[in-house]
This record gives sequence, C-alpha cells and structure tokens, in this order.
Amino acid sequence: MPKGEKLYEGKAKVLYKGTEPGTIVQYFKDDATAFNAQKKGTIAGKGIINNKVTELVMHNLERIGIPTHFIERLSDREQLVREVEIVPLEVIVRNVVAGTMAKRLGMEEGIRLERPLVEFSLKDDALGDPLIAEEHILSLDLADEDELSEIFDMTHQINDFLRGMFAGIGIELIDFKLEFGRLYEEDEVSYSLILADEFSPDNCRLWDLKTGEKMDKDRFRRDLGGEVEAYQEVARRLGISLETEE
Amino acid sequence: MPKGEKLYEGKAKVLYKGTEPGTIVQYFKDDATAFNAQKKGTIAGKGIINNKVTELVMHNLERIGIPTHFIERLSDREQLVREVEIVPLEVIVRNVVAGTMAKRLGMEEGIRLERPLVEFSLKDDALGDPLIAEEHILSLDLADEDELSEIFDMTHQINDFLRGMFAGIGIELIDFKLEFGRLYEEDEVSYSLILADEFSPDNCRLWDLKTGEKMDKDRFRRDLGGEVEAYQEVARRLGISLETEE
Ligand SMILES: Nc1ncnc2c1ncn2[C@@H]1O[C@H](COP(=O)(O)OP(=O)(O)OP(=O)(O)O)[C@@H](O)[C@H]1O
Ligand SMILES: Nc1ncnc2c1ncn2[C@@H]1O[C@H](COP(=O)(O)OP(=O)(O)OP(=O)(O)O)[C@@H](O)[C@H]1O
Ligand SMILES: [Mg+2]
Ligand SMILES: [Mg+2]
Repeated sequence: MPKGEKLYEGKAKVLYKGTEPGTIVQYFKDDATAFNAQKKGTIAGKGIINNKVTELVMHNLERIGIPTHFIERLSDREQLVREVEIVPLEVIVRNVVAGTMAKRLGMEEGIRLERPLVEFSLKDDALGDPLIAEEHILSLDLADEDELSEIFDMTHQINDFLRGMFAGIGIELIDFKLEFGRLYEEDEVSYSLILADEFSPDNCRLWDLKTGEKMDKDRFRRDLGGEVEAYQEVARRLGISLETEE
Repeated sequence: MPKGEKLYEGKAKVLYKGTEPGTIVQYFKDDATAFNAQKKGTIAGKGIINNKVTELVMHNLERIGIPTHFIERLSDREQLVREVEIVPLEVIVRNVVAGTMAKRLGMEEGIRLERPLVEFSLKDDALGDPLIAEEHILSLDLADEDELSEIFDMTHQINDFLRGMFAGIGIELIDFKLEFGRLYEEDEVSYSLILADEFSPDNCRLWDLKTGEKMDKDRFRRDLGGEVEAYQEVARRLGISLETEE
C-alpha cells in the first residue's frame, strides 16, 4: 500500500506517514514483548488479528459516540488513522484484579472489583511505565482537569460497551489499556481528545466465561502456549475473517 | 511513667496501652531504618527529639484547628495520644521533587512543584508501601470519598502551616508523611478523622534554606553523616530544649 516515510518503530507496530497530511499508517507486526520488553518473541499472524480486532472495536466505538483516530483499514496489517499528539499516559481499566495490580497490592488474581478501576501510568518505557495518580498528572501537567474528566468519561463508556461486546461472545473483559491523543484543528491551537493506538488481545485480558481460560497475551507472557490459537479464537468469535491477502 | 501492656513495636516507636481507656502511650526509640527496613541503625537521642518535635507540631496544628490524637507529653520519650483506627494509607505531601518520586518518574531532585502534590501509598511494609491512586483507595474501600476529601483538606492546611513554620527558622519543607486515624465515639459507630502518628525529621525532608543542607533522615539513608547534629539543629531552631530527664 502507498505510504510515506517511516516515523516510528515500536514494539508492536510501525508508524508511517499517510499520503494525506495529518494521517498515519499503523502497520501491525507479529512481534510480541512482555515485562517491558525483557521478554521477546513473535506470535504468528498476530499483526493481522490485531489490525482487524482494532478496526472492529474502533468502528463500534465510533457508533456509540466515542471519537477515535481510526479512518480505514488498508490491508491485512495496515490501517489509516488520524495523527494525534499522544497524551503520555497509559489508561488502564480493571474490572477484575490481575497482573501487575495483583502483584503490587498483594491481591489474588480474579477478585472482581466493586467498581471498575481506572489506573494511569506514565508512558515511559525507560522508567517501566510507572503508576501515577491524578495528582501527578495535574502537577506534572501531563493533562489538565478537563482532559482528565473527559478521559474518565470516555474510558468508562468504552469499558461498558466492550464488556457487553465480549460477554456476548462468552468472554470476560478483565482489564485493558487505552491511549488517547489530541487531534489539533487547522489553527494548531484548538483540539479535541480522541481514542488512539489500538485495542487487541495484546493490550487486554480476556478470560473465557465458561472455562476461565486466558485468551490474550498472558499466554505468551506466562509461557502457557497456544497463543496463536487463542488470538484466532477471539477473532473467530468476533466474526472476523482471517482470510489474508498475504 | 505508668503505662499498660505493650501493644505494638514498630520500627521507630513502641505503643503501650494508656492508663485511661482509649489512650495509647507512644514511646520514641532511637532506632532508624531506611529502604523499607533493609538498612538499620540508630541515631543517638533521636527518640527524644522526635517526641518533642511531634509534641510541638501537634500542639501548633491543634491551634489552627486540625484535630490530632495528641494529648500530652509524658516524658523525654513518651507521649499520651488518643487511640484511633489508623487509615491504612501513608499520605505524602511533596512541595519539591525528591527521593522516591524523583527516582520513579526520572525527575531531578530539587524541582519545585507548581502545586503541592499529595501522594498516597498503601500502608503495607511487606508490599513496600506501594503507591496507589484515589481510584484504588475507593475501589478497595480503604477510605470513602468524604474521608478522602477531608484528608486532602487537612493535608493542604497542614502543609501550608508547616511550610510557614519551617520557613520562619530558615528551613524548606520539601516533603513529609502523615497518617490519619478514625476516632470512634462511645457508640462505636460515629467517628471523626484526626491526625495521628508523628511529625519528625524521620518522616520529612528539611533543607536548610541558605545552604541547601539536608537536616533529616536522608543523612542516615544516604550515609551523609552528621545525623545526630542535624536532628539537634532542627530542635534548636524550633526552640525545643533537649535537656533530658534520662
Ligand atoms: N493516531 C496516532 N498518532 C500518533 N501516534 C500514535 C497514534 N496512535 C498510536 N500512536 C503511537 O504509536 C506507537 C505505536 O507503536 P507500538 O504500539 O508498537 O509502540 P510501543 O512499542 O508499544 O511503545 P509505546 O510504549 O510508546 O506504546 C505508540 O507510541 C503510540 O502511542
Ligand atoms: N493514635 C494512634 N492509635 C493507634 N495506632 C497509632 C496511633 N498513632 C500511630 N499509630 C500506629 O503506631 C505505629 C507507630 O509505630 P512506628 O512508627 O514505629 O511503626 P512503623 O514501624 O513505622 O510501621 P508503620 O509502617 O506501620 O508505620 C504505626 O503503625 C502507626 O500507624
Ligand atoms: Mg503500544
Ligand atoms: Mg511509622
């Protein structure tokens, strides 16, 4: 597909300039990392699945009124998105205790939270994406109060919708990570906050509602095996065709 | 001094039952620990200084309307306080970036914050007192929204007052840790939040305004030497007599 110069190569995606100004092409790789890139590997076909799952999720979220960066899918591994200034936060939503939260707070994995918990961490790989509180966000001017409250509102709405969507296909949405960005208008001053990056089994925990089986990157993180099949099963249940052009 | 059974021995203090019900005697030791008790030592005379600094601070805070657990000093190392149910949070106030915050967020020590930052960590030595956000406090029911907002209000007022008090004696108050407790009424249902524990150079950072010299437990933590003299100098500037009964 026609795309411009390479802008950034991350752990899971490569960003290229789009042909229209203000656009970016996200190319989804099969590379998988865990524990802040200490563990590295690949999951065959993951890029294709993540591209298509992200397309589906972004499309659905647009329909319930969440503004996103998504424009269109260009190919198996590429999608066109609007270029934004990423808010340097990882926004993590937890419905059930798992992973880092369980470890840090000495809680058992699987405890259902009374209310969904929204965590923030500073997007900084070198520092290991440290957890921060709203207080830090405001003090360090990473986002202002209006932005924070918009992020909370959108995040809760996204969580409600996605929990429903996954429940509908027999999957419990345990937790997930979002990134938001500032979409600037022509004047380069006014902007609106929109959902950016991706939503895929790389960035969430999905447990089969009946068996409790993990259907996400924890299979890779924890050497459980079957990660290719798990990603494929998520796509299959979401009604995503994996017939490729590759 | 007359005191009842030993209730708890912590890293810096021992708690005994007071003679009146609902009271506790805090006995201040010279023991010093750092890095979650990995480093241990003593600072000669520290217990006496911390007891008297805490007395002075609690007394002054009462005068500006902050309710505290402090009743009276009993001896060089002992003070009588009201027994409370400790809110399991360490409330940390930062005016200037230092210590853990500098390290976690990759910031230089000494950066003045635009607005005082209130951090919370879960009071749990085994977990290393992990930083948490208001979201965790509410989700895990460590405190409710009303309590949190009371804690914020009291904490900011305490910070304003103490910054002034230390500025008056040529010292900058960099950061400090507070603990709050629930003081139950006779019905054992209603309660009010009050300031508990201690305020001393063990739990704060104090930098000489002219020379920038550290006058707090960092001298011990970082093996700078002169910790006894530093604690004594803080007491001296506060007008505290160190003539002992020991
Ligand atoms: N619409 C967008 N405009 C600009 N940047 C974007 C947009 N959407 C996502 N990004 C950024 O592109 C990068 C995606 O690459 P990838 O997910 O591989 O990064 P990563 O290795 O996970 O690193 P990071 O920790 O920064 O996410 C991320 O840094 C993400 O913040
Ligand atoms: N008024 C009070 N009623 C009951 N407990 C109190 C009161 N004031 C302080 N405490 C508790 O007494 C203990 C004081 O001992 P010390 O400061 O040595 O503990 P520590 O080793 O620092 O452990 P911690 O991490 O629990 O503070 C703390 O656990 C503190 O929360
Ligand atoms: Mg990423
Ligand atoms: Mg203590």
